[in-house]
Amino acid sequence: MELAKAVLAGERLALARLLTQVENDTPAGRDALNELFPHTGKAHLVGVTGAPGTGKSSLVSQLVRAFRQPQDDKDPVQVAVVAVDPTSPFTGGALLGDRVRMRDLSGDPGVFIRSMASRGALGGLAQRTAAVVQVLDAAGFDVIFIETVGAGQSEVDIARLALTTLVVEAPGAGDDIQASKAGILEIADILVVNKADQPGVDSTVRALQAMLGQAESAAGKHLLKSARQAQKQEAAGWEIPVMRTTATSGEGIRDLAKAIRQHRTHLMDSGGWQQRDQVRLQSELESLLQSALLNRWRDTVSWERYQQTLDLLTNRRISPLQAVEKLLNNKQL
Amino acid sequence: MELAKAVLAGERLALARLLTQVENDTPAGRDALNELFPHTGKAHLVGVTGAPGTGKSSLVSQLVRAFRQPQDDKDPVQVAVVAVDPTSPFTGGALLGDRVRMRDLSGDPGVFIRSMASRGALGGLAQRTAAVVQVLDAAGFDVIFIETVGAGQSEVDIARLALTTLVVEAPGAGDDIQASKAGILEIADILVVNKADQPGVDSTVRALQAMLGQAESAAGKHLLKSARQAQKQEAAGWEIPVMRTTATSGEGIRDLAKAIRQHRTHLMDSGGWQQRDQVRLQSELESLLQSALLNRWRDTVSWERYQQTLDLLTNRRISPLQAVEKLLNNKQL
Repeated sequence: MELAKAVLAGERLALARLLTQVENDTPAGRDALNELFPHTGKAHLVGVTGAPGTGKSSLVSQLVRAFRQPQDDKDPVQVAVVAVDPTSPFTGGALLGDRVRMRDLSGDPGVFIRSMASRGALGGLAQRTAAVVQVLDAAGFDVIFIETVGAGQSEVDIARLALTTLVVEAPGAGDDIQASKAGILEIADILVVNKADQPGVDSTVRALQAMLGQAESAAGKHLLKSARQAQKQEAAGWEIPVMRTTATSGEGIRDLAKAIRQHRTHLMDSGGWQQRDQVRLQSELESLLQSALLNRWRDTVSWERYQQTLDLLTNRRISPLQAVEKLLNNKQL
Repeated sequence: MELAKAVLAGERLALARLLTQVENDTPAGRDALNELFPHTGKAHLVGVTGAPGTGKSSLVSQLVRAFRQPQDDKDPVQVAVVAVDPTSPFTGGALLGDRVRMRDLSGDPGVFIRSMASRGALGGLAQRTAAVVQVLDAAGFDVIFIETVGAGQSEVDIARLALTTLVVEAPGAGDDIQASKAGILEIADILVVNKADQPGVDSTVRALQAMLGQAESAAGKHLLKSARQAQKQEAAGWEIPVMRTTATSGEGIRDLAKAIRQHRTHLMDSGGWQQRDQVRLQSELESLLQSALLNRWRDTVSWERYQQTLDLLTNRRISPLQAVEKLLNNKQL
């Protein structure tokens, strides 16, 4: 409890300690999350995703710097970054990027950076990321960037935590859009073509704009496919911009930061903020429910019975569906 | 039931129909899966994954052709391809590739191609892919390629279905390995540098070899991180080869096909086949259990009670963990 209070009071060391508790899902971490949760819901959660090699990390560093510039007469906002990386014994790449960024932004007490590794199960990663973001939200950060390395469904799941989602693309060969292959274009509120000093940027921008046009006409013809798309429909009136940036030089960053703020205003005015917040929390609830149900069920089945069923399965005596039936019907609560 | 029998008898139209039932998770599809399951476990399941743009689809087409060449005096093997694509309203790219491949391989009755889209939830996709692969296995296909588009945890989950996993890389700028950023290198049994006619191939091969060396020394120092790594440890004696191919010209394909067959022999001799099969089935069982538990629980809770709890949550009156407790303790079986 003391840790939670210290976090609410703005103590950074307590924050780092609590995040470790939360990441490890300790009882103390769970208690603190319960205590902090009423203080959440104020931060602007900005997801940044895209294929490897698009320069997301540098882009986020530049955005952090841009958000730390005082706007009008207001105090500068507090900014946090959660960098979510899949673990691999082969690479220290993501961590290295993080260290470079740390050094780059260190000395600014208004910035906090935390990186998270996947450690295997993905459901767990999205759950832990949600919890970490809640702690940072309660701790008073105004803008929280959730950056995901990689490109695929995992990124979609993690981006679902955000209120505004940036999908980053780099100029490629012709209209070869990486994000479309990975299926992540549809979650974008803002499309960014980074590395805009490289050749091919015009054709990439055109390809993205063409895809946006197709998507809009397709949306009219097809059933809505996801809650997120339903939200988008209801939070209508936002035209997805395709923006150019060069993170290395800082070109285009100011406009991008402006677009992010505009999207925040749009969400506020249209009711989209509340709606996305609700969908976000519901999906977190269902994911936690699923884990809790599995844990609860595990306590009711002996290891021997589970192993017997697994043996029947691997010997092809029963099918996976029959194994599930067998295990659930033997359940005694 | 008749559909299942027709599939076992080798009827292709019945196969296509049953796969649709299985993909839609219909009662008839579930019954057929139960009936077919005892006939599974014979096919060599080969996963092919890697970042977008590495030329996986062409590579798989070439491999299919190579496997259809008669070996020694034996009859040519029957080959199936399951192409798993994330759905996006923005792109027809994956489907187009599929159509090109279809045309390319059509007319060969020993080849069957099926593409699958993600339709939202990923857990569901891995479950449905497992089921589709089981049907093809029971239908008598000797080699089944499971190709995934994209790069990320979703691909890792799907590759977990395979007995032999190929990770495909294309020559990049220097030692910029896409697969390592996406965290998928560690699942490879065979590394393939495709597009080997392009510049930079030597440095990519060297970078991959260096990463393999690092991984081996790291494996000694760190705890094993996943069941898959544990399997690898136990099915030791396989040195992960780094192979070069040019799918467009067919260069290197024959050697790659040979390496895939060698890995099959290795798995058979080392006991790795049985071990991976078991891990595969166990993870399928747990995923199905989780879905079944959630469905079962849903039947016990009224919509009103769920909605009330969700309202308390979105109003920040209770935390997600408290909401889970509330919902589970109200449960009446």
